[in-house]
Formats: sequence, structure tokens, C-alpha cells
Amino acid sequence: MSAQQALHERLFDINALNSAVTVLDWDQQTYMPAGGAEARGEHASRLTRMAHELFVSDETRTLLEKATAAAAPDSVDAAVCRVTQRNLDLATKLPAELVARRSKLSTQAHEDWVKARKANDFKTFSPILTQMVDIARETADCIGYTDHVYDALTDQFEEGATKASWDAMFDSIRDPLVSLVKEIQSAPNHPDNRFMFGEWSPAEQSKFTEELVQAIGFDFKRGRQDTAPHPFCTNFSIGDVRLTTRYQDYLGASIFGSLHEAGHGMYEQGSPMEWDRLPIAGGVSLGVHESQSRLWENIVGRSLPFWQHFLPRLEAVFPELRAGQVNDFYRAINKVERSLIRVEADEVTYNLHIMIRYELECAMLTGELAVKDLPEAWNAKYEAYLGLTPPTDADGCLQDVHWSMGALGYFPTYSMGNILSYQIWDALKADIPNADELMANGHFAEILEWLRSKIYQHGSRYTPKELITQATGKPMDASHYLNGITAKYRAIYSL
Amino acid sequence: MSAQQALHERLFDINALNSAVTVLDWDQQTYMPAGGAEARGEHASRLTRMAHELFVSDETRTLLEKATAAAAPDSVDAAVCRVTQRNLDLATKLPAELVARRSKLSTQAHEDWVKARKANDFKTFSPILTQMVDIARETADCIGYTDHVYDALTDQFEEGATKASWDAMFDSIRDPLVSLVKEIQSAPNHPDNRFMFGEWSPAEQSKFTEELVQAIGFDFKRGRQDTAPHPFCTNFSIGDVRLTTRYQDYLGASIFGSLHEAGHGMYEQGSPMEWDRLPIAGGVSLGVHESQSRLWENIVGRSLPFWQHFLPRLEAVFPELRAGQVNDFYRAINKVERSLIRVEADEVTYNLHIMIRYELECAMLTGELAVKDLPEAWNAKYEAYLGLTPPTDADGCLQDVHWSMGALGYFPTYSMGNILSYQIWDALKADIPNADELMANGHFAEILEWLRSKIYQHGSRYTPKELITQATGKPMDASHYLNGITAKYRAIYSL
Repeated sequence: MSAQQALHERLFDINALNSAVTVLDWDQQTYMPAGGAEARGEHASRLTRMAHELFVSDETRTLLEKATAAAAPDSVDAAVCRVTQRNLDLATKLPAELVARRSKLSTQAHEDWVKARKANDFKTFSPILTQMVDIARETADCIGYTDHVYDALTDQFEEGATKASWDAMFDSIRDPLVSLVKEIQSAPNHPDNRFMFGEWSPAEQSKFTEELVQAIGFDFKRGRQDTAPHPFCTNFSIGDVRLTTRYQDYLGASIFGSLHEAGHGMYEQGSPMEWDRLPIAGGVSLGVHESQSRLWENIVGRSLPFWQHFLPRLEAVFPELRAGQVNDFYRAINKVERSLIRVEADEVTYNLHIMIRYELECAMLTGELAVKDLPEAWNAKYEAYLGLTPPTDADGCLQDVHWSMGALGYFPTYSMGNILSYQIWDALKADIPNADELMANGHFAEILEWLRSKIYQHGSRYTPKELITQATGKPMDASHYLNGITAKYRAIYSL
Repeated sequence: MSAQQALHERLFDINALNSAVTVLDWDQQTYMPAGGAEARGEHASRLTRMAHELFVSDETRTLLEKATAAAAPDSVDAAVCRVTQRNLDLATKLPAELVARRSKLSTQAHEDWVKARKANDFKTFSPILTQMVDIARETADCIGYTDHVYDALTDQFEEGATKASWDAMFDSIRDPLVSLVKEIQSAPNHPDNRFMFGEWSPAEQSKFTEELVQAIGFDFKRGRQDTAPHPFCTNFSIGDVRLTTRYQDYLGASIFGSLHEAGHGMYEQGSPMEWDRLPIAGGVSLGVHESQSRLWENIVGRSLPFWQHFLPRLEAVFPELRAGQVNDFYRAINKVERSLIRVEADEVTYNLHIMIRYELECAMLTGELAVKDLPEAWNAKYEAYLGLTPPTDADGCLQDVHWSMGALGYFPTYSMGNILSYQIWDALKADIPNADELMANGHFAEILEWLRSKIYQHGSRYTPKELITQATGKPMDASHYLNGITAKYRAIYSL
């Protein structure tokens, strides 16, 4: 057996354990009866522990060293070794004791957060959030960093990102976004989206959204869609990618939720089949992944041509819908509103929500902001960026799950995704100038194929930065996003 | 940590791996897209190998020895050790090489069987079936036996069973059954069940069968029902038991399929919660398990009182059903027909189908019957016991999956289940004389509670024989079954 094969055999065993945990998790979020929770937690944590032990073992390290020495430069083999090395370094730098302590604390923090949000009582969450911030700092110390504690944390989610790079990204969009939001707010004529609210049959929504995501190219022979309280995309192999969606009063919840998750899903489905179960299959980073969900959700799914094709079909499924002309529908689904809740935010204000979280988590990590003072700081930022003050902490600093899970350094990847989606779309449009026309005719194959060839088929072979540069001709550049949304929303609001 | 706790920790790890495989398998049979099959096979086989390696390791053996020495006689701890010892002996007696060879061969045999059945071509299946019989003989040699090669094989499925015990069981029912079938065939007035065939909404069947199994006591907080091509019951813990059913032209397919699987499911749900994830939780053997599925399916679900309660409800769900009086419905769902296909057989002829398989697999194992001569031998038995000759091998000796999987020694547990179901019901009726009246009023709690206290709550603490003797006052005795069906069907056929 070659060195590479021997390494793969080991990685396939680890992949079997991790994939099983992923299936257990999918099942828990979709079908598991309540009574299964306790044993399920036990099963998942034991398998996770086994996967970790197998991965950080001396044998894996030896196999990796041999395979690395044997791999030709720039080969796929070398990429497998590089990604494995990065994962192994991350897994080894954290002492088992810290991992166990963090896992236990975050389970408790999550429970405390759920209760605190329900009771609108930040004080009861503050002590454990303080501990989570401390443990994040401890994690950063174990991982190591040169410039800023944030660098170590954020690199776990987005390889190569640093506080400096995020600062540059947010600096480039902060003022233009705040101005654009103000400009839109002052427009005389706002879209009416009330017709999108009502009681819509979940079964029909399910059928319609499956039709939509199949039409854009999600492959149901290698995937499916189910229902979950919080929509997500997951996958157990390249041939088995699962979407979830949810059904709410707002008809857009299922439609844009499904398109968003299908964007993630088509990225996962686009890896070369021969990479299946290897760590280079699948999306390269959270930010690049999010660029695909946002591209399909916003740039394709919230476009006028898209609905020129699909609105008649939607009206056939829901005859009670009173959408009016397609342009009214288009304006309705792109209504911009300064609002308090990130997950309900429109395309324009979304990044302001992210920026607030980024600035606050940086300040908490350096100690500049004491955790107990988070609510006031949060509210001040919402006033400054969005001109709103949350009436309660439940709708303010208690709204997101991330910090309770210890995911500090995660939020900026959402903004990166939004920004990249426009940059990638501009590159695509340069190659496919008639993309709008294709969409208006319900033809998405060429668009998907472009994304496959430029992004999806490369899995994690290249770093995120390399991949973006190859696909678009340059590193991340926010001007595409700013130009794109400015043009789109000025037209919608007749500015 | 006590010796028992240390053993449990090890068993919990093995249980995590095996439960994950069970979840993967459930998902594969219910929701998995076709594209997931290849990776799923890899994941399952790797996890199965890891579970096996962990189980047969020296460390497990040492932990078991210490725990066995420390366990008080007749305690639950001792039962855990006894069951673990039995499983470990079975797992260790088979060389890894044989297990791998058998697994590979059975995968091929299953594929060959599917093709041969489709093409009605026994000759193409005969060579690999010969190999499967050889490997079964080799397996028996490894396990060891005193009297008959069959003893070693059947004990894997039904602890304590031997060819001699199965012979005694079949000898006691063979002639009475053949006579009863002849008697029924000569009856002048046969039930009409044509109204049970039609196009029935799967969604309504799903709702109705869930209502049924919930009414008899299946706990949906700790379980669920899905759809699968071949109905089964599985569980991942005591708190998570899954049923499946299927929807066909015959309305009884989903109704009695669901009741059957719910019988298995309620048995699994009835183990003490504190035994969760230990090997003594769950049904004690295939035969005893089948006694519960058959009791709920046939004795409860095909009884007159049951439908006095549920027929109005069924007619409300399916107004197109023309069932007539409840007695007509009762006669229809108990129609006896000499037929060729085991899985479609009624309660009276079912055991004749099993007996034929049992006699033939014994003869193949001893070499008395050459595998190539199976079709003629099969057809001769069908003529002798049921007065029918299969027109094709597809409807004859190619109909069952078991032999292609190498499950020789399995079939008699089905008959054991049928026989025990009547014996257990008679014991129940002695304690609950008004059981019929309870059913006619839709009250099942007392019946379920009796089964729980006598059978379900004991899991695998006792051997099957001990359990049956405790629950019914004596070892298996076919007279209850013979008396029960003779009385029931003489009444139905006015004999």
C-alpha cells in the first residue's frame, strides 16, 4: 500500500466516525422523537471522542508525514496532506482537557442562553458568557497568534483571515452602507410586502421549494430536503447532501431559506466524486460557502428575471397570493427595513448587523468591553448604525446563538460571503453576459456549470484566497458588493 | 470506578458504534437518496469493523472477567455479564477471516438472488447458494455443536434452540395444521375481502395507522413511524424506537404491518430506562420478539372486539370502503387461502410455509439435499402441505431473502413466535378475563401493562426459556396455538 493509500485508509475511518455523528445530528434536528435525546447525546459524544483520539494519534501523524514526503508538489495528494496537516495542528494544539472543559461549559452556556433569552434577562447569562469569552482567549493562546487574539480564533473558521483583514473589509463597507440605508429610508415610495404574509400550506411550500431548487440545479438523486426549526444544509458524502427549510407566515421564509441552503448544497455536490470521504471534498471555508448560499438566495433568487420565470408558477400553487405585477413582487421581496433581528434582515442592512457583532466580540476579547456592559454597548451600536434601539435584550444582544457556543470569530464570515457573492457574480457575468436572459427563461445550467468549474470542483484543494483569486482574477474586493447593491436598491427605490 | 462501571463504559462505546450503524441503516431504508449508497456502505462497514475490534479485544475480555467475578448471583449485573459473555463467545469463535469472507459472499449472493428472482432463473443462483450453505456449515463448525450442525446455527438467533427442539415443535403442529387447512378449504362459505382492495390515500393510511398504534400503547414521544419498502422496526435506544410501514392496494397491508411492527416496538419501549445502552435492554430473542408482533397483529388486531371499536373510525377515514357489518369485516381480514408466498400468508397457513423452509434448509446443511435440486424439493413440499405447485421458482424457492444472506437457522423463530403468541395470550386472559370487552371499548392499557410486567420489563435478563416459563407457567407448548386458531377459524368458517 502506498503512503498516500495508507493515510487515506486512516482518514476514511475518521470520516466514518465523523459522518456518523453528522447523520445523528441531522436526524436529531429533523425526525428524532424527544425521548431519543439523552442516548443520542451519549452516542454522539462517544463517537466524537473516538474520532478525535484516532485523528490525533501518533499513528496518524506518522502516516501523514510519510504521505507528505511522498506527495508530488501541487498535486491533489499534496492538497490532502496540507488540509489534513492544518486540521491536525488545530486538533493537537488544544489540550484534551481544554476541549472537554469548553464542551461542557458551552452545553451549560447554551441552556443558560435559551433561558435568559426567554426571560429577557441578560444578567443571568452574563457570568457564563464571561467564562466563554475567557475560554475563547485561552483557546487563542493555545493556538497561538502574532498580532491579535482574534487572529487565532477567526482562522479556525476562515483560513488566513485576521483582525486586520476583517477591519479592512468592514472599513470599506461601513460608511457606504450606513449612507445607503439612510438614503433608502428617505425614499418616498416603499414597497408593500403584506401580501407575502398569510397561512400557506406547508405541503405546497415543500413541493414548490423543491421544484425551485431542482430547477436551479440541486440534484435530488444525491440529496433531499426536509423540515427543521432552524434551516441548515449538511452532507454525509458528496452523493448525499441534505437541505432543510421551514414554513412560516412569511412566504419568503421557505422560498429564500431553501434557495440559500441549496446554494450550500450545490457547492457540496460539486466536488469531484473521486474525492469522496477525503478532507479536500466540500466547501473550502465558511466565507466562501456563504458566498454561494447568498449568491443563489439573493443575486439569483431575489432578481427580477428569476421571478419573471417563477412568479406564474408560484401564483398557480398559491392562487390566494395577490402579488400584482412581477415588478411589485420583485420590490416586495427586496424591501429594506432597519430592523433589530439579524436573521430577518434584508440584503442591505445585513452587514451592519454583522459589523456590530464583530466590533463587540473584539472588544470583549481584548477586555476593552466588560461582558456585563454588553447590553448598553450593543444598543449604542444599533442606534449608531441602524438608528434603532432594541426595546429588550431578547431582541438585542441575546438574539444570536453563536457566543453561547463559544463561536467567537465566526460572524465576519457572513459578511465575507455577501461581499464575495457579488464579486463572483461580476466575474460570472463577464463570461456569461446573458445571465439575466437565461434566468428569465428558467435556464440555470450554464450559471451552475460556471460556478462548478471555477469554484465547486476545487473543494478545499486551494486556500480560500487562492481560490477567489483564481476564480475572479483578484482577492476579495468589496467594491463589487457596494456597486451591486447600490445599483439594485437605487433602482428599486427610484433614487 | 467499579468493575461493573468499567465494563459498562466499554460496552457504551461499543453501543455508540453499533447504534450509529443502526441509524445509518434506518436512514438508508427510509430517506437516503440513491447517490448516498456507496459512501454509506463504506461508513457502515468501517464502523461495524471498529465495533467488532473493540468488542473482541483483550481489554474487553479482562473487563468482563473482573465484572463477572464482582457481580452478585442473579443480579442485573450478573445478567449483563452473562449476555455479554454469550455475545463475546459468538463474536470470538468466528475467525475474522471467515466473517469477512462470509460478508463479501453474502453481498454477492444477495445481488445474484435479486437478479435470479427477477429472471426466474434458479440455475444462476444455485452456485452461490451452494457456497452460502458451505459457509454456514463452516460457521457451525467454528461455533461447535454436539448433536446436529443446525444446533450451532439456530442458537445464534434463538438461544437454547436445537434441531431436536424445532423438530418437536413442528411435529406437534404439522398434521393438525394440514387438516385444518383442508377442513377450511372444504367449507361452503368463504369470506369476501374484495372491498379491502383499492386506491387508498397513503397520507390517510399513515394517519390512521399512527392513531391505531398509539391507541394500543406505542409511545410516540419515544418513537415514530415512517415508510419503507419492507416494513421493519428498529431502535437506537429505549427512548427512540422506529416503526415503518408500507401502503399497498390491500388496505390491510399498512394496518396489519403497522400493528405487527408496533408489537416489536412496544417490546423495545418496555425495557427499564436504567438499562438503556446496555446489552440486556430490548427483546430477548427473535422468537419471543415475534410472539409480540404476532400477538398485537393477529390476536388483538385481527379480533372481532378490536374492530367493533375501530371499524367506525376506519370507515370515517375511508368513506369509499364498503365493509358491511363488522362481522363481514372480521371474516374478510381473516380469510384463509392456500397460497405460494409466505409474507402474504394468513395466520393458519403461515406455519406451513415456515415448516417447508425449515425442512429444506436442514436437508441442504446435512447434504441430504443438493442445492441444485432445491426447486423440485420445494415444489414437492408445497404440493404435500398446501396442495399447490409454484408455477415459477420466483414464486417458489427464490421468494425469500434469508438464505442469500446466509441466515440459515432463522425461519423456525417465526413459527415459535406464532405459537408463543397464543400461549402468552391464554396466560393473559387467565389474569384479565375481560380482555375482549376492554378491546371492544378501545382500552388497551391493562393488556399492555400485563405484557410489560411479564415480558417487556425483563429485557434479556433471563433466557428465552426462563422468561416464557415465568410468564406463562410452562415452557413453549403448541396446544394453545392449535386450540386458539382451530376455535377461531371453525367459527369464522362455520365448521
